[in-house]
Amino acid sequence: MAMLRSYVSGRWHVPSVEGAPLHDAVTGEEIARISSQGIDMAAALDHGRRVGGPALRELTFHQRAALLKALASHLREHRDELYALSARSGATRTDSLIDVDGGIGVLFGYASKAKRELPNDKVYPDGNVEPLSKGGTFVGRHIATPLRGVAVQINAFNFPMWGPLEKFAPAFIAGVPSLIKPASQTAYVTEKLVELMLASGLLPEGSLQLVTGSAGDLLDHLTAQDLVGFTGSASTAQVLRTHPAVVRNSVRFNAEADSLNCSILGPDAVEGTPEFDLFVKQLVSEMTVKAGQKCTAIRRALVPAPLVDAVADAATARLAKVVIGNPANDTVRMGALAGLEQREEVRRSLKALLEVGDVVYGSLDRVDVVDADAERGAFLSPVLLKADPDHAQPHEVEAFGPVSTLMAYRDAEHAVELAARGSGSLVGSVVTHDADFARDVVLGVAPWHGRILVLDRDDAKESTGHGSPLPMLVHGGPGRAGGGEEMGGIRGVLHHMQRTAVQASPRVLTAVTGQWVTGAPRTEPDAHPFRKSLRELRIGDSVVAGPRAVTLADIEHFADFTGDTFYAHTDEEAAAANPFFGGRVAHGYLVVSFAAGLFVSPEPGPVLANYGLENLRFLTPTFPGDELTVTLTAKQITPREDQDYGEVRWDADVVNQKGESVAKYDVLTLVAKQ
Amino acid sequence: MAMLRSYVSGRWHVPSVEGAPLHDAVTGEEIARISSQGIDMAAALDHGRRVGGPALRELTFHQRAALLKALASHLREHRDELYALSARSGATRTDSLIDVDGGIGVLFGYASKAKRELPNDKVYPDGNVEPLSKGGTFVGRHIATPLRGVAVQINAFNFPMWGPLEKFAPAFIAGVPSLIKPASQTAYVTEKLVELMLASGLLPEGSLQLVTGSAGDLLDHLTAQDLVGFTGSASTAQVLRTHPAVVRNSVRFNAEADSLNCSILGPDAVEGTPEFDLFVKQLVSEMTVKAGQKCTAIRRALVPAPLVDAVADAATARLAKVVIGNPANDTVRMGALAGLEQREEVRRSLKALLEVGDVVYGSLDRVDVVDADAERGAFLSPVLLKADPDHAQPHEVEAFGPVSTLMAYRDAEHAVELAARGSGSLVGSVVTHDADFARDVVLGVAPWHGRILVLDRDDAKESTGHGSPLPMLVHGGPGRAGGGEEMGGIRGVLHHMQRTAVQASPRVLTAVTGQWVTGAPRTEPDAHPFRKSLRELRIGDSVVAGPRAVTLADIEHFADFTGDTFYAHTDEEAAAANPFFGGRVAHGYLVVSFAAGLFVSPEPGPVLANYGLENLRFLTPTFPGDELTVTLTAKQITPREDQDYGEVRWDADVVNQKGESVAKYDVLTLVAKQ
Repeated sequence: MAMLRSYVSGRWHVPSVEGAPLHDAVTGEEIARISSQGIDMAAALDHGRRVGGPALRELTFHQRAALLKALASHLREHRDELYALSARSGATRTDSLIDVDGGIGVLFGYASKAKRELPNDKVYPDGNVEPLSKGGTFVGRHIATPLRGVAVQINAFNFPMWGPLEKFAPAFIAGVPSLIKPASQTAYVTEKLVELMLASGLLPEGSLQLVTGSAGDLLDHLTAQDLVGFTGSASTAQVLRTHPAVVRNSVRFNAEADSLNCSILGPDAVEGTPEFDLFVKQLVSEMTVKAGQKCTAIRRALVPAPLVDAVADAATARLAKVVIGNPANDTVRMGALAGLEQREEVRRSLKALLEVGDVVYGSLDRVDVVDADAERGAFLSPVLLKADPDHAQPHEVEAFGPVSTLMAYRDAEHAVELAARGSGSLVGSVVTHDADFARDVVLGVAPWHGRILVLDRDDAKESTGHGSPLPMLVHGGPGRAGGGEEMGGIRGVLHHMQRTAVQASPRVLTAVTGQWVTGAPRTEPDAHPFRKSLRELRIGDSVVAGPRAVTLADIEHFADFTGDTFYAHTDEEAAAANPFFGGRVAHGYLVVSFAAGLFVSPEPGPVLANYGLENLRFLTPTFPGDELTVTLTAKQITPREDQDYGEVRWDADVVNQKGESVAKYDVLTLVAKQ
Repeated sequence: MAMLRSYVSGRWHVPSVEGAPLHDAVTGEEIARISSQGIDMAAALDHGRRVGGPALRELTFHQRAALLKALASHLREHRDELYALSARSGATRTDSLIDVDGGIGVLFGYASKAKRELPNDKVYPDGNVEPLSKGGTFVGRHIATPLRGVAVQINAFNFPMWGPLEKFAPAFIAGVPSLIKPASQTAYVTEKLVELMLASGLLPEGSLQLVTGSAGDLLDHLTAQDLVGFTGSASTAQVLRTHPAVVRNSVRFNAEADSLNCSILGPDAVEGTPEFDLFVKQLVSEMTVKAGQKCTAIRRALVPAPLVDAVADAATARLAKVVIGNPANDTVRMGALAGLEQREEVRRSLKALLEVGDVVYGSLDRVDVVDADAERGAFLSPVLLKADPDHAQPHEVEAFGPVSTLMAYRDAEHAVELAARGSGSLVGSVVTHDADFARDVVLGVAPWHGRILVLDRDDAKESTGHGSPLPMLVHGGPGRAGGGEEMGGIRGVLHHMQRTAVQASPRVLTAVTGQWVTGAPRTEPDAHPFRKSLRELRIGDSVVAGPRAVTLADIEHFADFTGDTFYAHTDEEAAAANPFFGGRVAHGYLVVSFAAGLFVSPEPGPVLANYGLENLRFLTPTFPGDELTVTLTAKQITPREDQDYGEVRWDADVVNQKGESVAKYDVLTLVAKQ
């Protein structure tokens, strides 16, 4: 029988022991054996730190993003191999779509976010420059730099592809190497995934390692620069969180645990409304997709008391139509659980729930299946229960399968209270078309949730659904859900980096962050900086232009020409009564237009376009007769990896004849590389 | 003897037992006794959750900020009472300044940050709206809402005022009640502080509680919505972090522990340079301020090998001038340690350091003091050591007193390596005038540091120094330093809130966040929205204006008038060769000026001024003959608590005759309340 391999310290490792068997969830056949025996865990971590980390840190954020995008394309080409293996875990084609395409989508998502929201540099300036002194010689800014350790990623069995990929992508963008340890049950899928990733040839050696089988003494070797990302049960999370090396070294530990997620039907969503149907459809879908083995599935369906029977009936009718069986059969809508042990666990939890609940639909013991043996394969009927919400069990006992409990609530406050009894959830949903009810419930339950979906007739068609975490939104939840946070766009990248406050003079802060800071020296090159290509331009290159007087005639003409006849520009008396002006003033738009007229270099050259402005503030009014001088300074240079141009952000400072700042803003331009 | 009181569950609690004695650090006299016996910790937490939390959550961020500012002013008026008590802990006037005024400064800092950077609302929209669908009917945004528990704040003995205040301020702004548990040694100072805070009458009941004495079973009663903020030793941090209730409920736990902070002298900073003197001066200051009892003090002075002797000599000369003794004596520059036990601990650590180091200055046993008894008071001489950096002790053993170790490094890489051997520090400093050296070292050591100061001749005069955390910058560090993060402006507020991704239709997301989201319904009121006062105006109120054609004559005239004769506006042939335009286009500034001309309502009214623009993007070129229509929509309304006007942010969307967005931006205005 085939042994699953691990990829550690730059080579594939094949254990020389018998190993533990892994079974096909549908047929019960043995697929492979697994063991991590013989792996030097300390050496693997060291390899990541010594080889993978430095190689990643050689690259800029944008270069890492380009690799991630290429990797996503590579995996997309090999989807079929992954689908075939995924089916053996009991997953239908739709289930695999979430796992495979969802995982690849995370890579694309992170590639795109990194390109748009991170500098093409190796250090990330976080937030604004903070003035720390009156004279401006002492300023501060936060930077984020990659941790120098390894991101140890311990994944759950239910998403053997999406799970590793959603942890790998932000670590990779951050510049931190990953060591993936999948759950044994479905590790054969992750092994294939990692094989494909490595075969792409895109990943720097050491940036991705794989340990199949037990983690052994892996955690013993963690240092303060390593991280642990765990997805799985709350009890395992507690064990790992209190591991001596984790505690001793304050190792960053992120847990994402199954939770008792709820979906709340609004009182407005009575039978016959689109929201009633959406609620029932989503409930059944969350029960049956991945055979309910999703940490985001709906475990608690909270329904206004008068609607409970109607929901029970509608859900029953819908559940009755779900064809269960071998995913290879095209009519099958729900496959098997991941294995016989999982089924036993679900049955145990179901028994606890049945102490206080009644079965609305389904059975613990009986299920009709197509093209499969219901006992040899890990099949289980969907089970919808109904219970009094005052009982503890429905809020505490999670049956990690196609199981949900229907409960009645009285009013919005009661619904919020019940939702909170889950003690922290990954996700909740509210199905309503009443925006006030949505607002009250969302703000009420938000402290207990990492994500909340509001589903209604307006967004249903495009909604990605209750159960699907997205790369641009955070995934994780407080309390019972583990207290962690993953993804959320750049937030997930920053979780792999150290935030450091840097205090320095503007000159030094410019050197450290790679972005020009007000007060730092400027260079006035021989040529106008607009005549310099992206490659020639340097941070701090500047041009001072002016002065130009603004006359009353200019203001009146501008008002006439643009139609902007606001009284502060046209009516001396009214302007004098305005608390900020005390007389007629020039339009802000006139000031920035004149400033552009001063700093522009008109002939064709490397500057291709002005694509925007940021942070424009009018600081001092411009009165007729004032003379304006503008200083434009190259503040940030962002070459694009895949274009022959890049972005240059210029600091613009317009002052009057007294030296007062009239307007400050950033001018955004596209500049050719050559 | 006086018993220290606690303030819990709405009343002052006086223990009825004998309690443990607290001693004057200077004279050894007993000051008070302390015990938490008889306090119902569960009830105290419950009081915070049931009374304090709801009261705080009734207020907006700006209202909380106003209270915090008033509280700061109140404490400033009572500084002298705090100074007097502070002296009994061994603190000089300068030491107390850091503690008292520094703490009050944090309150002012948070009041100001909250007003400027948070909405005047109860929910904080975090980051941008995320498009989640092509059609725009399904969008996402993160919100932050206050945790519904209590922020349990366990403080260290060295800053009995600044310590509690720097934890209280961000919790208060977040809307989370605080329960302060000071270290026993100096709890008499914190008791006075809390008494003054409560006496101000500014704080909603339940938003501030105090437990003096042991924490008892406090932590047993924590839930997933509570937080723990701890400052103290690494070993205590480990014990608290693994407390069963903390682990079971994934309680947010933030630790800030003493660390082996370093200061690095640049190779350029040879004798005679300003940086050499700054380094020595700072080193001596960090050794002696608070008698070295600062978690941010310099424990390791890293100096280029050729400069070690010179630094040792200069530091010795400076240390010799430090007058030690009773803080009541004006000539005294360094007071006592907090107590005799602290002195014993420092001596124990010093002995471990002496195994590998030589004394450059000072003594374990002898110290000359003025106006005090060197043995009855907890006095200790500053001790500067010199050691080989290859030894482990100087990087691992912290003597929490006036102690530092001088070590030689070879080059920048070696300095970075040595700095990292502290395994995580709160702060480091680099003293150099060489920006490249500063950049290399800062980026090299950043992953091990929460804060880094670069000190040079340019910022020295205004620098706040190595040892001083600031409210707008993060405080905390990885690994040995506890792995936590406090303050950092709004970051510290968000640490007390739950971040939740909300997915909804634009209409519902607008209702939830209180900010208008693109795609949400607009209202076209009878009156132009510029005619509405801040009180009358509603989110979504809008005006559509136009169309106005842009002619070639307009473009040419605008070029002439403003001087912005960039070729894309003036030279058909050159513009056609530009990769983005393909022909002459209107100036972006012309587009926004015409748009203002369209949407303006000229007569005097509630709109007082346009103070800026944000996020301006030019999305489609405007060609001669194009017709522009602008839609302006009230997006965010921010009344100012202390003014008769507020800020209104308008969404501006300029489209052409084909319906393509030409420009999108936010217009920032000031609008009168009435």
